[in-house]
Amino acid sequence: MSVHEQVAAARQTAYRLAVSSATRRNDVLLAMASLLASERETVLAANERDAHAAREGGLAGPLYKRLVLSDSKLDTMVESLRSVVALPDPLGEQVVARELDDGLLLTQVRVPIGVIGVIFESRPDALVQIASLGIKSGNAVILKGGSEARETNRALHALFARAIGETAPELVGALQLVETREEIGAVLELDEEIDLMIPRGSNELVRYIQQHTRIPVLGHADGICHLYVDAAADEAMAVALAKDSKTQYPAVCNAIETLLVHASVSGMLPAIVASMPEVEFRGCERTRSVVECAPADEDDWRTEYNDLVLSVKIVDSLDEAVAHINRYGSHHTDAIVTHSREAAERFLREVDSSSVLWNASTRFADGFRYGLGAEVGISTGKIHARGPVGLAGLTTTQYRVTGAGHLVADYAEGRRSFTHRELP
Amino acid sequence: MSVHEQVAAARQTAYRLAVSSATRRNDVLLAMASLLASERETVLAANERDAHAAREGGLAGPLYKRLVLSDSKLDTMVESLRSVVALPDPLGEQVVARELDDGLLLTQVRVPIGVIGVIFESRPDALVQIASLGIKSGNAVILKGGSEARETNRALHALFARAIGETAPELVGALQLVETREEIGAVLELDEEIDLMIPRGSNELVRYIQQHTRIPVLGHADGICHLYVDAAADEAMAVALAKDSKTQYPAVCNAIETLLVHASVSGMLPAIVASMPEVEFRGCERTRSVVECAPADEDDWRTEYNDLVLSVKIVDSLDEAVAHINRYGSHHTDAIVTHSREAAERFLREVDSSSVLWNASTRFADGFRYGLGAEVGISTGKIHARGPVGLAGLTTTQYRVTGAGHLVADYAEGRRSFTHRELP
Repeated sequence: MSVHEQVAAARQTAYRLAVSSATRRNDVLLAMASLLASERETVLAANERDAHAAREGGLAGPLYKRLVLSDSKLDTMVESLRSVVALPDPLGEQVVARELDDGLLLTQVRVPIGVIGVIFESRPDALVQIASLGIKSGNAVILKGGSEARETNRALHALFARAIGETAPELVGALQLVETREEIGAVLELDEEIDLMIPRGSNELVRYIQQHTRIPVLGHADGICHLYVDAAADEAMAVALAKDSKTQYPAVCNAIETLLVHASVSGMLPAIVASMPEVEFRGCERTRSVVECAPADEDDWRTEYNDLVLSVKIVDSLDEAVAHINRYGSHHTDAIVTHSREAAERFLREVDSSSVLWNASTRFADGFRYGLGAEVGISTGKIHARGPVGLAGLTTTQYRVTGAGHLVADYAEGRRSFTHRELP
Repeated sequence: MSVHEQVAAARQTAYRLAVSSATRRNDVLLAMASLLASERETVLAANERDAHAAREGGLAGPLYKRLVLSDSKLDTMVESLRSVVALPDPLGEQVVARELDDGLLLTQVRVPIGVIGVIFESRPDALVQIASLGIKSGNAVILKGGSEARETNRALHALFARAIGETAPELVGALQLVETREEIGAVLELDEEIDLMIPRGSNELVRYIQQHTRIPVLGHADGICHLYVDAAADEAMAVALAKDSKTQYPAVCNAIETLLVHASVSGMLPAIVASMPEVEFRGCERTRSVVECAPADEDDWRTEYNDLVLSVKIVDSLDEAVAHINRYGSHHTDAIVTHSREAAERFLREVDSSSVLWNASTRFADGFRYGLGAEVGISTGKIHARGPVGLAGLTTTQYRVTGAGHLVADYAEGRRSFTHRELP
C-alpha cells in the first residue's frame, strides 16, 4: 500500500472508531496486551536482529540502550496496555448542554480528533504507548519509527494488527506502520488528511517536524526551564529545590538549565553549589564573585544541556527574573522559591510558560504526577493543549443540535426568541 | 515602526494585558465606545475618502456596500463595543483544581493566548469587532485590513489607540495596524512571535493564509453544508427546513449547498422545489426524473455557491448520505430531517462536521444563536476550537502548582505518594 492508501484506510477506520463503544476499544487493548504477553518471543527475536545491526553499525550508548528490549521491558509494555484500559473513556462527555429555545437543545460533545501521525525515535515502547492511547481515544494512528528499530516495530505492529483483527475486524486499519524515510516526507504533506502530528524524540526531530509540515504539531522542541530564588526564599528549601530540579533526572525536559538568584540572597550560592558536587556550574560575572565556576555567556541562557550542567545568573529584581525567563526560556516549566505570596503570585501570572510552580520542583510538571492518567506529551504551544497532555488532548468537540423543525427565519423576524438556558 | 517592531511591542503589551484586571480591560472598551461615538465625524470623513476612491476604481456592488459606513452602522459599532463589555471575563477560570499531595496543589487556569493576527477584507466593522474581542480576552492584536478601507481603518485605529492611551497607557501597544501588502508576508512568517491567525473574508483569503503560514489558523475556507431528508422525514418539516437552510440568508457559510433526499421520499421534491421559486436547482439524474431542473455534475457536490443555487442528489440509504457528506462536504454544518431517533443518532455521530443538527435549520450554527455571546469565527479545524468560536477560543490554559518545598525525589524513592484528589 502507498502512504496515501494507508492514510485513506486510517481515515475510514477513524470514522468507525469514532462510533465504537468504550467496551469494544478496551477489548482491543486487552487483546493487544494478551498477544504481546503470549508472543513475546517473536518481538524479542525481532529486537535482537535490530540490536545486532545496531552493534555492527556502532550505535552509541544511550540510543542503543533505549533500543534493546528485555523481558522486564516487555512486562512493562503489557502492564502499560492494561493500565490504559483502566483509564476513563475520554469520549462522549457533554462539555456544554444548553436549551436554545423550547424544544431546541444544544450539546457540545467530546469526540476523537481523527487521524494522528506519530514519528518516534529508537525507543520501541513509544509505539506501544501511542498506539494504545490512540485507540483508547478513538483515533487512527499513522506510526513512523526509527529505522534502527525497524524489525521490532514491524513485529509489534503485526501482533497488534492481529489482535485487532481477532477482536474487532472493522477496526483493523486503526494502526498504519510507515517505514521509509521518503514516506515521512509524504506523511508531512498530507495536511488535508492527517489532523495532528506528535513527534516523540530529540529536539532536532521535533524542530524538523514543526518546520516541515502544515499539520498542527503537538509537543515541544526545547525544555529550557528555570528556578528563581527570590529575595524572600528560605535557604534550605532553595538548596533542596535546586538540587531536585537539576539532578533528580537531568536528561529530561522539565529539569532546570538555569538558576536565577536574587542579588540579596546570593549568599545562598555556596550551599547550592556544595549540594550537587556532580554538577558543572557556569555563572555570570557576579555569580563568579561569590562561587568559583566557569563563565556563562549569552549562549548558555539559550542552551538545554540535558546534562549535569547548570548556568547561574544573579538578578536584581523579580521583574528581571521574569523578563529573563520570558526571553530566554522555552515557555515549558519554571519555578519560584519564596515565602512572599505577593512575589509568588506575580511570578505565576507573569511567566508565560505552560507550567509555573511555587515552592515545588520543576520535575513535577508531568502527566502522571499531575494526575492525568497517561501522558501523550508536553506541549509548549498555546493552541489546543498546553503543558502535560493527557487523553483529552487527543479529542476535539462537536456541536449537536436537536430541534422539532425549528427555523432561523422565526428568530430573525421576531416571532420567537432564544432562551439560552444552561442545562445540568 | 517595522512589522517586527510592531509585533515585539504587541508581545510586550500582551504580557501586561495578561495580568490586567477585567475592570481595566472593560474601562478601555468603554473609552473606545465613547470616543467612537463622539468622534464619529472623523471616521465618516475617512470612510468617505475610501468610498470615493472605490467609486473611482469601480469597486463592485456588494464589496462597495460593505465598505461604506453610515451613522447607523457606526451606532451598531458603538453598541457592539458596549455589548462586549457586558460579556463575562473569559480569563482566570479554574478549569482544574486538584490536590496532588498534602500541601501540593495543582490548578489549570484560563489565560490569554498572547498575540493574535487578524487579516480582514473591506468591512471596517471587522476591525472594531476583533479589536474589542481581543482586548476583552487579554490578547494583543495585529490588524491588517483591506487596502480599499485604508483611511477608515487608520481613523478607527487612531481613535482606539487614543482611547487606550487615555485610559490605560501601559496597554497602548495592544492594537497594531499593519498596512502594506508586503507587510502581510512579513506577518505570516512570524510563527515564533504570533500565536494565532484569524482571517476574516473570502474563501480565497482564508485558503491563502492557511497555505502561506506555519502560524495556527482559526477559521474555515469553505461552507459546503448539507440537509439530508431521511426516509422517515415529515414532508412539511422537510420543505420548511430546506427553504430556511437555503434561502434565509444564502450568502453565508452555514446555508446549505446540497440537498440529499432518500429515494423512498423523492416524492417530496416537487413541494421542496415549489417552496423556493427564486432558487436554481441542479439535480442528479434521478432527481431530474422527479423534478425539472439543470443537471448537477461532480463539481456541484464540491461547490459553495453562496447564492440562490441548490444541488440535489437522491441517495438510497443513510449510509450513502453520510458518506457523501464526509467526502464532499467541508466538515462545517450538516443536518438531518427525520422522526426516527435511531437514524438521527447515527447521523449525528457519523457525520464528521463541526456542527450537526437534527430537525433544525443549518442556519442555527452561529455563535450568537448558540449562546456564546460573541463570535470570533467558525472553525472547521479540529485542533483548539471547533464550530462557532466564542471568547474562550481566544484563551489557552496554564498549569500552576503551589507547594511547600515538595521534591520529586521523595515520590520517586517511595517516601511519599500522590493523593490526586479533585477539589471543588
